[in-house]
Amino acid sequence: MVQAVADVGAAVTGVDVSHSTTSTVTVDVTCDTVDGEHGEQVRDALNALDGVQVLKMSDSTFLMHLGGKIEVTPKVPLKTRRDLSRAYTPGVARVCLAIAKKPEDARRLTIKRNTVAVVTDGTAVLGLGDIGPAAALPVMEGKAALFKQFAGVDAWPVCLDTTDTEEIISIVKALAPVYGGVNLEDISAPRCFEIEERLRDELDIPVFHDDQHGTAIVVLAALINALKVVGKSLETVRIVVSGVGAAGTAIIKLLVAQGAQHIVGFDKDGAVHAGNRNEDRNRDWIIDHTNPENVTGTLKEGLVEADVFIGVSAANILTGADIAAMNEDAIVFALANPTPEVDPLEAAETAAVVATGRSDHPNQINNVLAFPGLFRGLLDVGATDITEELLRVAAVAIAEVVSDEELNPAFVIPGVFDPRVAEAVADAVRSFERS
Amino acid sequence: MVQAVADVGAAVTGVDVSHSTTSTVTVDVTCDTVDGEHGEQVRDALNALDGVQVLKMSDSTFLMHLGGKIEVTPKVPLKTRRDLSRAYTPGVARVCLAIAKKPEDARRLTIKRNTVAVVTDGTAVLGLGDIGPAAALPVMEGKAALFKQFAGVDAWPVCLDTTDTEEIISIVKALAPVYGGVNLEDISAPRCFEIEERLRDELDIPVFHDDQHGTAIVVLAALINALKVVGKSLETVRIVVSGVGAAGTAIIKLLVAQGAQHIVGFDKDGAVHAGNRNEDRNRDWIIDHTNPENVTGTLKEGLVEADVFIGVSAANILTGADIAAMNEDAIVFALANPTPEVDPLEAAETAAVVATGRSDHPNQINNVLAFPGLFRGLLDVGATDITEELLRVAAVAIAEVVSDEELNPAFVIPGVFDPRVAEAVADAVRSFERS
Repeated sequence: MVQAVADVGAAVTGVDVSHSTTSTVTVDVTCDTVDGEHGEQVRDALNALDGVQVLKMSDSTFLMHLGGKIEVTPKVPLKTRRDLSRAYTPGVARVCLAIAKKPEDARRLTIKRNTVAVVTDGTAVLGLGDIGPAAALPVMEGKAALFKQFAGVDAWPVCLDTTDTEEIISIVKALAPVYGGVNLEDISAPRCFEIEERLRDELDIPVFHDDQHGTAIVVLAALINALKVVGKSLETVRIVVSGVGAAGTAIIKLLVAQGAQHIVGFDKDGAVHAGNRNEDRNRDWIIDHTNPENVTGTLKEGLVEADVFIGVSAANILTGADIAAMNEDAIVFALANPTPEVDPLEAAETAAVVATGRSDHPNQINNVLAFPGLFRGLLDVGATDITEELLRVAAVAIAEVVSDEELNPAFVIPGVFDPRVAEAVADAVRSFERS
Repeated sequence: MVQAVADVGAAVTGVDVSHSTTSTVTVDVTCDTVDGEHGEQVRDALNALDGVQVLKMSDSTFLMHLGGKIEVTPKVPLKTRRDLSRAYTPGVARVCLAIAKKPEDARRLTIKRNTVAVVTDGTAVLGLGDIGPAAALPVMEGKAALFKQFAGVDAWPVCLDTTDTEEIISIVKALAPVYGGVNLEDISAPRCFEIEERLRDELDIPVFHDDQHGTAIVVLAALINALKVVGKSLETVRIVVSGVGAAGTAIIKLLVAQGAQHIVGFDKDGAVHAGNRNEDRNRDWIIDHTNPENVTGTLKEGLVEADVFIGVSAANILTGADIAAMNEDAIVFALANPTPEVDPLEAAETAAVVATGRSDHPNQINNVLAFPGLFRGLLDVGATDITEELLRVAAVAIAEVVSDEELNPAFVIPGVFDPRVAEAVADAVRSFERS
């Protein structure tokens, strides 16, 4: 049986007899498979054996999600009458009155101090698109778990059963008393821009759209270090950004804030330049702040002699030959998920530094490097907003975690489990906010 | 110093030297006081001593609330790359797609299975009134802590910065994907009636207004047992209910459901009868289902020869003499908080059974006996609504926890820490829902 499983390429990690009689044996076989389809192959291979019948197949990923991935637990004892009378009535009344009298004490006396709302409407979940709020919940739970694990932040999923911009804005405003910050997540463009902007204006707690700014922070951090590796400066390099949606726009803004002067953005119609201005404010911002030479044409044309490629667009739109046409010591961040803009192995044939969004290649650009420490710092100082400069400071802090001794083409950005990162980001945010 | 504290009536429980020099000693004095004002007296008494200066006074209730009373914690390991790829991307995508394809799987694969929203707008918090959503948060956190402690339910505070009925309804509907149930809390009447009714109609998860139904369940449970003590039957006793707001209305409805036939409700203008019908639907329901003899007049007049008094109204509106005018073996539930309708000691001079909402008298009517087990049962069966009959079944289950051997005038209702209660209620709910 183990042989049959191994024959279809799955690695058996355990065989446990769960039930035995004089004539039959029920066995739990645990094995690693590549994906769900591979699991089906294992089942078929076992069923094909004489005298073997697969009764039930469990999937460890699904098992992990059973009943949800987070829970709400009391931080205070509730074992005695005295506990109860302090945590709840009648003692709690004094705490309520203290907050009613002095509203700013809510940050001291309630969960607001340490709690972030992870808000989505389920319209742009991972690479899956508009799957709705219920189907988005596993992602938001995972995000909440990461917040706690990496930075001790209590985060709670808010999956909204509406896609109306005004309704989302008014709901998040109404929910705000409980939260010290808002992390917008997986909301489709262009609604995400207005929702974020309006909430930043109208709320007195920081609002952060992770798909935009989380990505931008980590991209800038990686680029700072990649430029060190190749010995070029941000001010002089020619940067091509493929994709000017939520992430691309935020990346361009942050690169400009850090001093980049030669950026050209591309969408599926080619270079974004003064000649193709439209009614979109974000696009207009890009036109006003990038492409000073008024480059036109296709992405492939634009890549010729460019120093840096940053892709947040679509799978397999470039080949190794396109990368080979870039300048010497090219930097390639191909971040489309799960399949990058160019095969990273092909890119690496000529590029000096290659990064992707994937965990199975070096230099993974992963938002988890940014959002936990960022909110840790913001909550610690009771911040009321987020500025572009703060995002830039956070990016520099992540870049600086990689020491000169560690820096090399395969390590321009720390790993997701590097315990230095969240603390460094939180420190930088706290210092910035206090200055 | 200890003597000075004792002289003002506080009990010293600890004296710790926190700092000492050749000329001064800093001491932490821990003592029990009756309330905040008493604490001030202790401070004044210490400051009055020669050579003693109080540097800082801390309040243990406030210390308990510092930073909030609940937290969000991961239930899954996130230590390794494999953990991360299962709990978050890329593994989570398969779970999302499974829910998108089969929405009812959300109850299996997300926190929806075990999670309740504790929703308030802060308009009727404890006895404090309209203190707003931020000041209400300590109560909602406490409630969430009780949900977990008593029944393993994950509950999350939703404190809404709006008092608009339609807006509250649409927000709760939009939030529903994350929750398996809604516990409305401390929302003022009459808005609470419409909010609950509409949400019950428009949501496919159970909606429960604890101030109404939680109280009603525990009152019915206590009354069932109190009637056993005095040997009277619910069908024949004359019941006076003082207060026909949210709690009073729900109590009357549940008593009627259990078979009570002689109830008269009173508000501050006297008996509710067919002659003072108005536009209020809840009041009309009471008129149509109670007071068959068309009693009119004041509460005190109505109490003469009554068997049962249930007060959910105001402090000190009755005297021992009013209770003495009731029938033999009177039952008095004086539930106004924190000061009952009648002094329970005075009531006990003639009444056979006395209950209050207070923890310092026998027979405390406390909602914590109902809501944890109720939602435990509802979540376990994936219930989609709550009926009057379910509430009645829950009340009977609480009453039955008190065995015939335990039953006596000072023990008609189990204590809040009785571990049998939540399980009994959950069992009853599960059996009812499955039948």
